[in-house]
Amino acid sequence: MSETGVTTQLARFVVQSRWSDIPQVVRHEGERAILNWLGCALGGCRDETVERLLAALREFAGKPRATLLGRGERLDALTAACVNAVSSNILDFDDTHLRTVIHPTVPVAAALLALAEHRPLSGADFVHAFILGVDAECRIGIAVSPEHYENGWHISSSCGVFGAAVAAGKALKLDAQQMTWALGIAATQASGLREVLGSMCKSYNMGHAARNGLAAALLAAGNFTSSERALEAPRGFLNVLATRSDAAEITRELGVRWELMQNAYKPYPCGVVIHPVLDACLDLRAAHRIDPAQISKVEITIGPLAQQLCGNKTPRDGLEGKLSLYHSAVVALLDGDAGVHQYTDARVNDPRVVAFRDKITVSSDGAIGKEQARVRITLTNGKSLEMFVEHARGCLQRPLSDADLEAKFRSLAAAELAPPAIEHLIEQCWSLAELPDAGAIARASAAPDAR
Amino acid sequence: MSETGVTTQLARFVVQSRWSDIPQVVRHEGERAILNWLGCALGGCRDETVERLLAALREFAGKPRATLLGRGERLDALTAACVNAVSSNILDFDDTHLRTVIHPTVPVAAALLALAEHRPLSGADFVHAFILGVDAECRIGIAVSPEHYENGWHISSSCGVFGAAVAAGKALKLDAQQMTWALGIAATQASGLREVLGSMCKSYNMGHAARNGLAAALLAAGNFTSSERALEAPRGFLNVLATRSDAAEITRELGVRWELMQNAYKPYPCGVVIHPVLDACLDLRAAHRIDPAQISKVEITIGPLAQQLCGNKTPRDGLEGKLSLYHSAVVALLDGDAGVHQYTDARVNDPRVVAFRDKITVSSDGAIGKEQARVRITLTNGKSLEMFVEHARGCLQRPLSDADLEAKFRSLAAAELAPPAIEHLIEQCWSLAELPDAGAIARASAAPDAR
Repeated sequence: MSETGVTTQLARFVVQSRWSDIPQVVRHEGERAILNWLGCALGGCRDETVERLLAALREFAGKPRATLLGRGERLDALTAACVNAVSSNILDFDDTHLRTVIHPTVPVAAALLALAEHRPLSGADFVHAFILGVDAECRIGIAVSPEHYENGWHISSSCGVFGAAVAAGKALKLDAQQMTWALGIAATQASGLREVLGSMCKSYNMGHAARNGLAAALLAAGNFTSSERALEAPRGFLNVLATRSDAAEITRELGVRWELMQNAYKPYPCGVVIHPVLDACLDLRAAHRIDPAQISKVEITIGPLAQQLCGNKTPRDGLEGKLSLYHSAVVALLDGDAGVHQYTDARVNDPRVVAFRDKITVSSDGAIGKEQARVRITLTNGKSLEMFVEHARGCLQRPLSDADLEAKFRSLAAAELAPPAIEHLIEQCWSLAELPDAGAIARASAAPDAR
Repeated sequence: MSETGVTTQLARFVVQSRWSDIPQVVRHEGERAILNWLGCALGGCRDETVERLLAALREFAGKPRATLLGRGERLDALTAACVNAVSSNILDFDDTHLRTVIHPTVPVAAALLALAEHRPLSGADFVHAFILGVDAECRIGIAVSPEHYENGWHISSSCGVFGAAVAAGKALKLDAQQMTWALGIAATQASGLREVLGSMCKSYNMGHAARNGLAAALLAAGNFTSSERALEAPRGFLNVLATRSDAAEITRELGVRWELMQNAYKPYPCGVVIHPVLDACLDLRAAHRIDPAQISKVEITIGPLAQQLCGNKTPRDGLEGKLSLYHSAVVALLDGDAGVHQYTDARVNDPRVVAFRDKITVSSDGAIGKEQARVRITLTNGKSLEMFVEHARGCLQRPLSDADLEAKFRSLAAAELAPPAIEHLIEQCWSLAELPDAGAIARASAAPDAR
């Protein structure tokens, strides 16, 4: 095996992997990732980006086999994979593989769930394929990091296509030869520029990766040939799409170290460096039952990177609000919450929110880390309250608990599903590996009588 | 206009272009390119690559609106664009923009013709949009040449997606804002690795570009937003997909110099550096009515590049035969032809063909150019015949005539269409700009009663 290249080695590993090889803790992490992802899809499925995508592409879609999450409408699996990936990414609330900044679940789960409605797949096979897909895309991402992302590639898309291909290929029971081709077909479709991240194309990049990865697996299953060295060849993915790469990262500790265990879930739908500030504001407000009207001053001290990325005091819309420490602190203190509703265009432009920003000052301290923040609130009665956050909620040292993920899910799903349907879907996710038909979670996300 | 970037400038040019701006000679070149392309599609439409592509993707296709060239079956326009691009590229017989080595017509014409069956388009609008699409993709290709291709990008695909987007966008009457988005959506989908060129993915890259370019235009028509500086931005296409680029090439002499006029058509479906050798062998054989049994020796002198690229004396299959000077010379002399039938796996392995290779010697001479060759044939009676080819047929100095293109078309179409149907299609191509409905040529390519 050492004589062969990493493309073949990775393909063989995926093909030979058995469900019994996957540790219980990794299986459970797979269910956590899927629950988090489904919630994001439910929260995003009515976004204008999804509406415009559907308006343009619906008339080209094939037989209705795969459910659009939350919406109920069904399209062919390739188009559904694209749409569901867009829905689940649009809120910037999906998960993050911190080492690569890949958002790993979106392309893999969207491709796999659409396929599971096209050709039935057991829950265990679904979770197994999902874990392998995430592992592959993150390992390939590590091999080209940080240069690939720094050079301008939207790594969640350009590497996500491999994750979708591997997961769908595992579900389709490809042999090793076919799996190398699936990787090759994925490689030659790898795309996605960071330049478009401020537009609707941000999420389209994810949809494109999901669709193309699924197509790669379907083509390979039909013996559509490709290179067998598409990753490591001189003109392969690693060399062409990165100025430096380390192919050995793709197979290092394969089957021992699972990249899914390095995955983090966001408690708030905004820039991750803002999160410790939100923790402090929300915790101080709750612990001291602060009435916002009594706040005279809020002093935030944060690391230099956070101030540089999120120091915008005058955001103009929801998207800019997600990258503003000022807006985030204001809504956390005013609303006692920092969810999707706090980052709408309307909320960002609410005169009361805008006026409150003048009470906020932000300074940076090189001794404060990326996951840390200090917040001091001075009240009109002169009293001062202070909190230092050592590790933000959701980071690997302080991961969201299962209960946290459930609460996040309930909040995101509320606009689409009635409470009993929400609880049913949560239960299905926690028992996903025991479900006879994984596609059931797609249908349950859009139960016509559940709203 | 000088203040804006090249993405916006290119978009405005395309949107503002009028049919009356296109010189007659360029319009006619558009018809020549389409005739050549349709023939290639008819010749390639039953290839195993197309069969496997269809077997995998057909079940996901939408309403049957757009014809699969030569085959008659109809699929949704996006899938049909992909399949027709694959069919028309698979034989390596399509056209070449020599400066960039882009095969320009395949992605542009495949996207546009599929769209023309989805939403009716006049022949003049079709030719107009086609010319603009080819111009855009070749100009973008020039801006990143030669580094982009040298770095490993399959330029016909990675730039072809822009050609398809521009042509489809023009046909959809996008405004300038939408056209910049179409370019942005194309840019973020740009992909295609040279690494896969020896596999079925070679043509899939072209199908992917056609499909994605069409999707980009359809999305932009529905106001799906993207970057407005996707070409020139620091993290845009030019900088991310090339180690050096010159954005000014994209707009230099725009509307004055038409890249379609730099397009060349192959007389033979094999490596272009072999072409002067085939010219000499075929011309000598015809002029002297040579009986192959009387040939004792064939001495070929060619440029160093040709010997390096095509010096393989023992090709094993049709694909390798297309890159073998030896095989090419043999079939030209034995068959008096060098068409698709001379490059099948069977013909390459025919014992008589294999044995005849021993009569061929190839040497190189640095004074002989890429489009040149010297061939000396010695007969068993001691007589010697020699020819020097100054410019190979099909190069820009000696382009294929309209009659040559018709002959090529007849040969390629013969397996799919009866002679009257072939002549009808040729007439339609020559009057394409006058047709009320451009989609008619797609339907005529697969007339059910025409075989």
